Amino acid sequence: MKINSKRLLNHLDEVNMITADGEGMTRPAFSGFEDEAHEWFIEKCKELNLRTHQDAFGNSFATIGPEDKKGILIGSHLDTVNNGGRYDGALGVVTALEVALTLLDENAALSKPVTVVAFRAEEIGLVGSSVFTGLIDRSDGFEDRLKEMGRTIDAVDDSIGYEDYTDYVELHIEQGKNLETKNIDIGVVSSIASLNRMVVTVHGEAGHAGTIGMEERNDALMHTAKILTEFERIVKSYGPPNVGTVGQLEVSPASSNVIPGEVRFTIDLRGDDMDDQHAIREEFRKYVSDNHTADIIESPDKEPAHMSDKIMDHIKASCDASDFSYEVMTSGANHDANPLSRRMNAGMIFILSKDGVSHNPAEFSSEEDIEAGAEVMLGTVQRLLDE
Amino acid sequence: MKINSKRLLNHLDEVNMITADGEGMTRPAFSGFEDEAHEWFIEKCKELNLRTHQDAFGNSFATIGPEDKKGILIGSHLDTVNNGGRYDGALGVVTALEVALTLLDENAALSKPVTVVAFRAEEIGLVGSSVFTGLIDRSDGFEDRLKEMGRTIDAVDDSIGYEDYTDYVELHIEQGKNLETKNIDIGVVSSIASLNRMVVTVHGEAGHAGTIGMEERNDALMHTAKILTEFERIVKSYGPPNVGTVGQLEVSPASSNVIPGEVRFTIDLRGDDMDDQHAIREEFRKYVSDNHTADIIESPDKEPAHMSDKIMDHIKASCDASDFSYEVMTSGANHDANPLSRRMNAGMIFILSKDGVSHNPAEFSSEEDIEAGAEVMLGTVQRLLDE
Repeated sequence: MKINSKRLLNHLDEVNMITADGEGMTRPAFSGFEDEAHEWFIEKCKELNLRTHQDAFGNSFATIGPEDKKGILIGSHLDTVNNGGRYDGALGVVTALEVALTLLDENAALSKPVTVVAFRAEEIGLVGSSVFTGLIDRSDGFEDRLKEMGRTIDAVDDSIGYEDYTDYVELHIEQGKNLETKNIDIGVVSSIASLNRMVVTVHGEAGHAGTIGMEERNDALMHTAKILTEFERIVKSYGPPNVGTVGQLEVSPASSNVIPGEVRFTIDLRGDDMDDQHAIREEFRKYVSDNHTADIIESPDKEPAHMSDKIMDHIKASCDASDFSYEVMTSGANHDANPLSRRMNAGMIFILSKDGVSHNPAEFSSEEDIEAGAEVMLGTVQRLLDE
Repeated sequence: MKINSKRLLNHLDEVNMITADGEGMTRPAFSGFEDEAHEWFIEKCKELNLRTHQDAFGNSFATIGPEDKKGILIGSHLDTVNNGGRYDGALGVVTALEVALTLLDENAALSKPVTVVAFRAEEIGLVGSSVFTGLIDRSDGFEDRLKEMGRTIDAVDDSIGYEDYTDYVELHIEQGKNLETKNIDIGVVSSIASLNRMVVTVHGEAGHAGTIGMEERNDALMHTAKILTEFERIVKSYGPPNVGTVGQLEVSPASSNVIPGEVRFTIDLRGDDMDDQHAIREEFRKYVSDNHTADIIESPDKEPAHMSDKIMDHIKASCDASDFSYEVMTSGANHDANPLSRRMNAGMIFILSKDGVSHNPAEFSSEEDIEAGAEVMLGTVQRLLDE
């Protein structure tokens, strides 16, 4: 059984015709462009003889196989960031569709239903998949957030649908450089990293750049320089896949002839082991409080999402069967597979994205890599059907 | 001979009645408030029997003593930053006036004229004193800058007046903490620091905070942290009065989940020895180019302004005569005495400013410290008259 990569790429081209003007792909969550992409998906699947439906929230589904059993869910999302790429999300949906079409073409015996899903609004916080799994954050302001999305609480309640499925498989571009650097075909995701965000405010004393000697200063930016270097050292000392990033930093009062009195910066910390993650934060907090004057505000942890060993084994076996090399890896980026993994067996297949570029018009995966990923996806679904 | 500190403080109160609404003193350069302060100065001096004139640029002068000799110039400026303090500039003018009034009161024999000066627009780059000394920067855009000031080139040419004077003495608040920390009465300024400004742009590679491992990153902000720490170490290693400050720093793209691709920051470097200053910059440039990828753009040097040994000796002798302790120091802040020192003998007397606070409504010097400064100023002028 072999996927039809021409058809797959045609479908990818078709969905990428739907975009706002400007560089790259712009199909933002809840925009008319996202709506249009879902309409394309539903119409295309009807035309190709899949059974389609859309839940009240707007997630789209297309099914083949028996109706009375719990099924296998495969897919991704169709929204993009503004001026994003052609592959992030859309490739996972059209690859899942290609797997279903190949099974149909070959009249494969289906022990259970196979459903292709296109989730909504992944790029703004996995919204569609979190609604589908009943895991959407309903804390303060939920109704206001829903109103902005043009959705109601009833629609959210009516769209919880995870109980009909036993397994979820998603193909996605890596958005990193591991596969490219090591010349490996396929990434077998073992977990999606935890995420913790902190805001650190470092206190010093503002003063005239000319009149206060170096030894008399309490320069918030020079404190910050030492804090950043120590933060980097601590995170590195715990090894991969732990990563920590300071992406935003603001100096106050921000005048070239005034010693900074305060610096505020963000920390984004990810990994797959909460013991490591807690230890990193503990060591960082201790260093800061022992050596500087600073406040640290931590957001609640988002714990790592572990992929199913069974599905990982199926992915590996499919790679072996096709002679593709693979590496087990943690996904530092978040995906719909995260909430799905909390409700059923989940797995993810990564393919190479050139130079690790993503969320950018330059995002690129070759036809060869896409075909390899689709083959592994098909093999994985076949193995799930054969269980 | 003794100054009348009540009268001095009354004059300070009178000039500080002239301010825009809001906290502290607001008499910005070329505003109606600065004009009004100069009108107050001219009217007050006329009333007190000094010979007054204003040059075409708006600098104000009030003279006592003979008319046919080169004179001694004493004073400072009357403009302030927005929401500045009561002492920066104005105290130097009213103290100089008090010295002249004391000489008049005592019918002192004047071997040469003594002229009190109130310069314009010190706070926006020593504009009035640079015009007076013929040192104003006439590079590109000069006429536009003049138009913004409401001035003409003819007015600038007509206001070059330094040739009528042999000496300049200015009293000013320290704007630093040296005197307070060491419990010393008077600062004898030996030089006004050189100033060099640089803009450094550090290059890295932007990327997703989750998908690029710590060892694979080229994080412009982590490079910057190391550069800042090394910059601080280099400046400190050259000792006082060398000081270096990074006051502005901007991270790009400035998103909490994106590794910074570029960081741009300013450097403000001051000292009194150009050999040290060049060596600091050389060492810094070498460190940066050996270890990181960055561009450094340097502005032209503003060389240090050396005060006259003769006037420094007069100030020290005046301190000794009144039993005031003194310390010789570099001024890290710039003053009207800078351009003046390039055309005649110049000297500066610093008095204590509480907590080093300046350019702020909380700026404060005590009556006792002001009286001490005025006495030293009088003694210095007497010694110049006695030469």
